[in-house]
Amino acid sequence: MDQELKKRIRSDRGESLIVSAEEAAYMIKDGMAVAISGFTNSGYPKAVPHALAEQVKAGREEVHIELYSGASVGPEIDTELVETGIIQRRIPYQTNATLRKAINSGKVNYSDMHLGRSAEFVAQGHVKKPDIALVEALAITEDGDLVPTTSVGNVPTYVQMADSVIVEIAMAKPLELEGTADVYMTEPAPNRKPIPITHPGDRVGAPYVKCGWDKIKAIVISDMSDLTRPLAAISEDSRKIGENIINFFRHEVEAGRLGKSLLPIQSGVGSVANAVLWGLKESEFEGLTCYTEVIQDSMLDLIKCGKVTVASCTALAPSPEAQVDFFNNIDFFRDHVIFRPEEISNSGEVAHRLGLIAMNTALEVDIYGNVNSTHVQGKKIMNGIGGSGDFSRSAQLVIFTTSSIAKDGAISSIVPMCPHVDHTEHEVQVIVTEQGYADLRGLSPKERAVAIIENCAHPDYRDMLMDYFKRACEEAPCQTPHILDEALSWHSRFEKTGSMK
Amino acid sequence: MDQELKKRIRSDRGESLIVSAEEAAYMIKDGMAVAISGFTNSGYPKAVPHALAEQVKAGREEVHIELYSGASVGPEIDTELVETGIIQRRIPYQTNATLRKAINSGKVNYSDMHLGRSAEFVAQGHVKKPDIALVEALAITEDGDLVPTTSVGNVPTYVQMADSVIVEIAMAKPLELEGTADVYMTEPAPNRKPIPITHPGDRVGAPYVKCGWDKIKAIVISDMSDLTRPLAAISEDSRKIGENIINFFRHEVEAGRLGKSLLPIQSGVGSVANAVLWGLKESEFEGLTCYTEVIQDSMLDLIKCGKVTVASCTALAPSPEAQVDFFNNIDFFRDHVIFRPEEISNSGEVAHRLGLIAMNTALEVDIYGNVNSTHVQGKKIMNGIGGSGDFSRSAQLVIFTTSSIAKDGAISSIVPMCPHVDHTEHEVQVIVTEQGYADLRGLSPKERAVAIIENCAHPDYRDMLMDYFKRACEEAPCQTPHILDEALSWHSRFEKTGSMK
Repeated sequence: MDQELKKRIRSDRGESLIVSAEEAAYMIKDGMAVAISGFTNSGYPKAVPHALAEQVKAGREEVHIELYSGASVGPEIDTELVETGIIQRRIPYQTNATLRKAINSGKVNYSDMHLGRSAEFVAQGHVKKPDIALVEALAITEDGDLVPTTSVGNVPTYVQMADSVIVEIAMAKPLELEGTADVYMTEPAPNRKPIPITHPGDRVGAPYVKCGWDKIKAIVISDMSDLTRPLAAISEDSRKIGENIINFFRHEVEAGRLGKSLLPIQSGVGSVANAVLWGLKESEFEGLTCYTEVIQDSMLDLIKCGKVTVASCTALAPSPEAQVDFFNNIDFFRDHVIFRPEEISNSGEVAHRLGLIAMNTALEVDIYGNVNSTHVQGKKIMNGIGGSGDFSRSAQLVIFTTSSIAKDGAISSIVPMCPHVDHTEHEVQVIVTEQGYADLRGLSPKERAVAIIENCAHPDYRDMLMDYFKRACEEAPCQTPHILDEALSWHSRFEKTGSMK
Repeated sequence: MDQELKKRIRSDRGESLIVSAEEAAYMIKDGMAVAISGFTNSGYPKAVPHALAEQVKAGREEVHIELYSGASVGPEIDTELVETGIIQRRIPYQTNATLRKAINSGKVNYSDMHLGRSAEFVAQGHVKKPDIALVEALAITEDGDLVPTTSVGNVPTYVQMADSVIVEIAMAKPLELEGTADVYMTEPAPNRKPIPITHPGDRVGAPYVKCGWDKIKAIVISDMSDLTRPLAAISEDSRKIGENIINFFRHEVEAGRLGKSLLPIQSGVGSVANAVLWGLKESEFEGLTCYTEVIQDSMLDLIKCGKVTVASCTALAPSPEAQVDFFNNIDFFRDHVIFRPEEISNSGEVAHRLGLIAMNTALEVDIYGNVNSTHVQGKKIMNGIGGSGDFSRSAQLVIFTTSSIAKDGAISSIVPMCPHVDHTEHEVQVIVTEQGYADLRGLSPKERAVAIIENCAHPDYRDMLMDYFKRACEEAPCQTPHILDEALSWHSRFEKTGSMK
């Protein structure tokens, strides 16, 4: 091995294991459950999946596998392995257009899971034991342990569960990333101990994933880079939603329920999340911390400008430009960013202990505060619940955001009834749209309906919603008034006419 | 004070505070938020609420209050204070027919909350600060701290929050109960520490609730007993559900996922819960432990026969006979039963750490595994979500039970779509009816539908459900097939014709 490679593979035991991506891909056989690294197009294996897809295209016998990841991964997997029919079953999350289509058409069986529980779900044997773990690593230590790159995800559990591990060494990522990961693993119940994190910045584990040379069956040297996604521009709606959230924070400070440093922030990904974080940059709040699943450009910016002192996550999901900046300034960021296993980044135990402010995106919200995060029209899967449920059930403040309308106004995101519910009235506290926010805490369902319609619904739909609510109230008295024959009529009308109006 | 009273009020400072229930009731003023002890008709204040109701009936000026409890409480509160129009707002749970009617008719604003989060919800100021805490106690210590009776509930937080405390000394309960309570309180976030419980039997707090003499404004000596409810006979359906659960456990043992002692058990209340526990008594399982919200007759029986070594809960909800037996054998039970604050008994952190087997009741389940626990026809509140959500999101095994039909077959408890969702497809793992069980773990929604219809639905509805599912699948392909115009038609038909058929 040359000097550069010796820094990445720190034992002579590694040399004989180095194979081509093609050779490694042949180790993946029909019927296997393959567990991979990767979280939001970050730190996922690329060379071997691509080689596997090419092999099948070139006439290798059929290969059908079950694929377990950390969350969404790049197109080398969720496009290429889907187009070739290789992935038959998939957990726990995805965001890929090709895979989404295959799931909705029934070609791929997809179980949409709470991400924070997905590692233990595999470890507890609720699904097939992984035959192979295929993981990206920055380096392999002298003892055969794996240094993660820009995500930790479910790698610690997957490596522990699998008898065979294939490692892709990510030459495109700087060795200086080493030390950003903090790998703490929980024991199986009933012998689990408290997770010893009491501050977002606590380091409680090792900077590598325990593996050992005996498990490593192949090492692939890869020059491929994560295909991270460019950042969507912040829309006017997103900017207003961000403003409304900041105003809500101010209201909470005035009421004495929050201080100037707020509480540790959990924020979903995407345009709204970015807008909120940009809003915080301009605000009076400071000394902020972050305990979340994924950090994006805006969070890196908040760290750089000193507003955020530390951000804990399981993955970095930057734009291509922000990734370059992160790598260039890794010596600075290493003191402020921690990558954890997703069962720790998304731990309900820790989320509750820290008292997070959880901010996640809804597809739609009904007038009583139930949230649909996953199913368009209650039927077609969009992405999945991701970590939103891990946080919504354990955080101190639970905020869901959505634009009040979609498809140029043909869809109201505030509806009489959600045809699919991912977050229930029992945990949803605050709904924010570009129109304003509805604070639902302590309200009865009928009080909530008025708050949501008046503060969050788009003016084009406000009267229609109030009309539905009033007529529902005039039926037999009940806690949560509905007209059953009409509750889903808005969605049905959209199917038939292309508009909810 | 006489000798008996001195054992109950252990400082001379108490003597001058002793007043009649009527005098204490006058301390409750219009507009107050009153926070009380009590959980499932156990350990709730009785004399003062009754006196208050009588005063209003006798012409005292109008009194309207917000009432916060631990959970459901006895008729002296949820009947009498409702009939007199005194309760205007109520959290976090109820099971009372009079209150239910008042809630559904809109006379009482009811927010139906996750019980394990309800104490902190009040402490964090999401609702009005309690003006008075009105609590039953076994005794007041020398330092003015309160010894709980047969429930702890939210008393520690309510007493901490309120400036004024009224104590009802429960002379009808034996002093020997002292020592059953284990009161551990969490700090406010972000300075919360791990809850140091790693076994259901761990004692980590004090046997009393911290209060102090300065807060105590009145002491009422009461001879009244809890109006606990008689136990419903175990129905044939419940017995079969119990059998099916035991069979599922055996299947899990065979698969190596459970051992002979299973995992700590959480069980809801009622006929099915009792049947399951009776089933365990006859089974090969042993060395069981229990970490749950409420213990009932069957659990006491399991403890007596040695099958269960320790049961942690927040309240005892026995039949009148079992209560007598518990009091008579308190020296035995004290070593095996622990009463905790409900934020600890229902802690997601602890539930997850211990890897509970959570068993709770559904009103209805849809073909994709979403559960309605609270709303009849999606509209009328029955009781509330109680602790079921605390456990379903954190337990290792999540089981929901229901009879496959209700109202002599006019209702199918397996429906195309639930018009209200309390537990989502993401956390519901196993559905059990008297017909059998459906193991949903790792399945896609369409696979779940087949499993539920074939294993759980009543034969009278199986073809109808399969017909709906197949026709839904024939519409545009999607992850979770539905026919929007028909999804709620079963409920609508029941409203119109009295039957889902």
